[in-house]
Amino acid sequence: MTSTLPRVLVIGCGFGGLEAVRVLSKAPVEITLIDRTNHHLFQPLLYQVATAGLSAPAISAPIRHTLRAQMRRGNLTILQAEVTQIDAGTNRVTLDDGASLVFEHLIVAAGATHSYFGNDAWARFAPGLKTLADAFDIRARVIGAFESAERCEVAAEREAWMTFVIIGAGPTGVEMAATMSEIAQHTLKDEFRRIDTRQARVVLIEGSDRVLGSFPPGLSQRAREQLARIGVDVRTRCKVTRIDADGVTCEVQDAALTTTLRLPSKTVIWAAGVAGAPLGRALAASSGAGLDRAGRVIVQADLSLAGHPHIAVIGDLACAKSHGRGEPRPVPGVSPAAKQMGRCAAANVQRRLRGKRTKAFRYIDYGSLASVGRKAAVVDLAVPPFGALRFSGLLAWLFWLFAHIYFLIGFRNRLVVMIEWAWAYFTFERSARVVAQPPATIHT
Amino acid sequence: MTSTLPRVLVIGCGFGGLEAVRVLSKAPVEITLIDRTNHHLFQPLLYQVATAGLSAPAISAPIRHTLRAQMRRGNLTILQAEVTQIDAGTNRVTLDDGASLVFEHLIVAAGATHSYFGNDAWARFAPGLKTLADAFDIRARVIGAFESAERCEVAAEREAWMTFVIIGAGPTGVEMAATMSEIAQHTLKDEFRRIDTRQARVVLIEGSDRVLGSFPPGLSQRAREQLARIGVDVRTRCKVTRIDADGVTCEVQDAALTTTLRLPSKTVIWAAGVAGAPLGRALAASSGAGLDRAGRVIVQADLSLAGHPHIAVIGDLACAKSHGRGEPRPVPGVSPAAKQMGRCAAANVQRRLRGKRTKAFRYIDYGSLASVGRKAAVVDLAVPPFGALRFSGLLAWLFWLFAHIYFLIGFRNRLVVMIEWAWAYFTFERSARVVAQPPATIHT
Repeated sequence: MTSTLPRVLVIGCGFGGLEAVRVLSKAPVEITLIDRTNHHLFQPLLYQVATAGLSAPAISAPIRHTLRAQMRRGNLTILQAEVTQIDAGTNRVTLDDGASLVFEHLIVAAGATHSYFGNDAWARFAPGLKTLADAFDIRARVIGAFESAERCEVAAEREAWMTFVIIGAGPTGVEMAATMSEIAQHTLKDEFRRIDTRQARVVLIEGSDRVLGSFPPGLSQRAREQLARIGVDVRTRCKVTRIDADGVTCEVQDAALTTTLRLPSKTVIWAAGVAGAPLGRALAASSGAGLDRAGRVIVQADLSLAGHPHIAVIGDLACAKSHGRGEPRPVPGVSPAAKQMGRCAAANVQRRLRGKRTKAFRYIDYGSLASVGRKAAVVDLAVPPFGALRFSGLLAWLFWLFAHIYFLIGFRNRLVVMIEWAWAYFTFERSARVVAQPPATIHT
Repeated sequence: MTSTLPRVLVIGCGFGGLEAVRVLSKAPVEITLIDRTNHHLFQPLLYQVATAGLSAPAISAPIRHTLRAQMRRGNLTILQAEVTQIDAGTNRVTLDDGASLVFEHLIVAAGATHSYFGNDAWARFAPGLKTLADAFDIRARVIGAFESAERCEVAAEREAWMTFVIIGAGPTGVEMAATMSEIAQHTLKDEFRRIDTRQARVVLIEGSDRVLGSFPPGLSQRAREQLARIGVDVRTRCKVTRIDADGVTCEVQDAALTTTLRLPSKTVIWAAGVAGAPLGRALAASSGAGLDRAGRVIVQADLSLAGHPHIAVIGDLACAKSHGRGEPRPVPGVSPAAKQMGRCAAANVQRRLRGKRTKAFRYIDYGSLASVGRKAAVVDLAVPPFGALRFSGLLAWLFWLFAHIYFLIGFRNRLVVMIEWAWAYFTFERSARVVAQPPATIHT
């Protein structure tokens, strides 16, 4: 185990960390990869686990299995552990069991968590969606809500069980809302006796004036029309002021008028705010690096920290800029950006080892896509030098489908996901409608 | 919702309850089915979820989906709820939310739970396998043990992480032990750096003098030989006297000599004792029915309770006898018996409604089968009037495979399971090696 090779530590095995390890494993370095879980999660499809469309293993690849080829090269150690402290002065990280590891180079890819904009008390009533545990929690709440409605004898309360509020109309919020409408309208429609699931209400709340704000306005409009068609009640310019056990209160801005809206609901899902993982704060404190408002670590052009060229932060935890032609532009928190940062940080470690200057990060945006339920999606592709290719509807949905299946890690997962989806498409049935724990354990 | 039809209440949607509802849905009765969970669980394959071979949805069918044809007949209500009390005097059951339901006929199919033979403190250290939550717990412990071993710096402790003890050599214990040996020998073998997973030790402990005690001695012998071949350390005549956080202590009887054996282990699984669900005690207290030593409710020949002909107990919660030719014989706690009891109890409800005498239960034993890892199983088929057909090895394993896939509820599940197994067979990979929660949450 003693090796004279330079020690590179990678924290986190999301898209960024995984890519960094893949690149570095071919270099003359000794790598240690640390992750809290045993799996790499394909987060773009996590909402499908939350809405019972896919089983957890279908979108989660065991890290050790994914990296078995790299493992064989003999310079990679994988530890399932939580990093509790980073000491940028002594080049040392501390793990949850008190053990510590020394590094010469560090790549921090610890990702993001939900942000309730200072209202952490809302977390209990409105869970966010970042981990498999989150997805199981939401699945249990959604399925449990219909069960509770079926049992409920009080009309007003039954209505609250039949009302689903999703806060935040980014890609995750839009996908969740569309899928939940599909569940109520199709999947469950003949399976209850006292309630008619088709009368369930799905409300999508957004603070800004349009859904999918990162897309061009025309595609936002297409998405909004599609959501209306499938029965989702979209409320833009609507700011949440309170969430409690019985529902959500919002302020709706309409021209000069501000009105208050109360939505009685027992199932609220938070898809609004994202913040850098807590480890970012620890790193900033130790290294003197700055944090942006979302708690992301501000990095230099080459993704390293000012004054600590051997420490880089990548992925959703980094507040990075893309250095292409023209002014540096902020990098969005999406998986292709994380992958590209992973490659850049790994290459910069190698450049430093060879005594070369590091390279500035440049984000290449291939475009973005979001599904809007069954048979609809919006696609915004960058096609340099011709500009952009934008389309929506069935063709966009097919494009979304194949892109997601293509990028799923591991052939087996792809195969299983394809079968699950083909089955779901033709039957409207959702294959993972299973709640392991009784609802009492999750609502308390 | 008001109906003048006789109200039949069925508690529990395992093999027995599900079968009773299927039969009764065609009769002029108003049925209410109550289950704590939202799914019917195919328990014979639960060990595959625990050992990461299958995802939970692959062996769990949503009750409402499974019974949607019966639902359409208009006389079935399904409630996800826990029954907390049964009043045999007023014909009323109480639910967890305080609501109560009145019945004219009651079929109790609440199943079984683990029994630690009075040592409930062992439960923390040696979880049993009855529910999906149990399976996730065991999966997290097994996968987490190898991760802990990889991190561990102390040799003795590392060995304890690499030692897996399964207590009880019935079908579940044998299947668990064989699969865990396969995981250590094949699935994980190239995926760690500091440990060699092939040095993991799997110990199967049994109090009696042979494994698979319900099978003929010849097949027990075959199973034991197969277990030895794949590296499982089988210890018969070995009684557990203590389980704690660091391992298991047993007393080994060898001729006249009794020795004490201490097995340091961080992962212990309980597959030994089964007891009737706690609801059985409540029912016995209210109805005056007797309980056997395992807490099962003693029923009459027609599965009803003495003095309460309108209340029947079936499945694993019933201490029932089979009334065929010759002396009445105890009915084993297996799924075909539960199904047959479900059909019998449902038919008896109908007979009583028509003013006819009820029929005594007769168990038809078609035989039993158990797999012993990869490419091996034992099969003991009853072939009246020719006697028994017994075989083991590859042919038995193929028979086991097709029998289990055939009986899996729902075509989609069968298809998914077949693909998962075919994949696992050729690659040794296990598709569900995913732990949603970090290990800290389950070991505390």
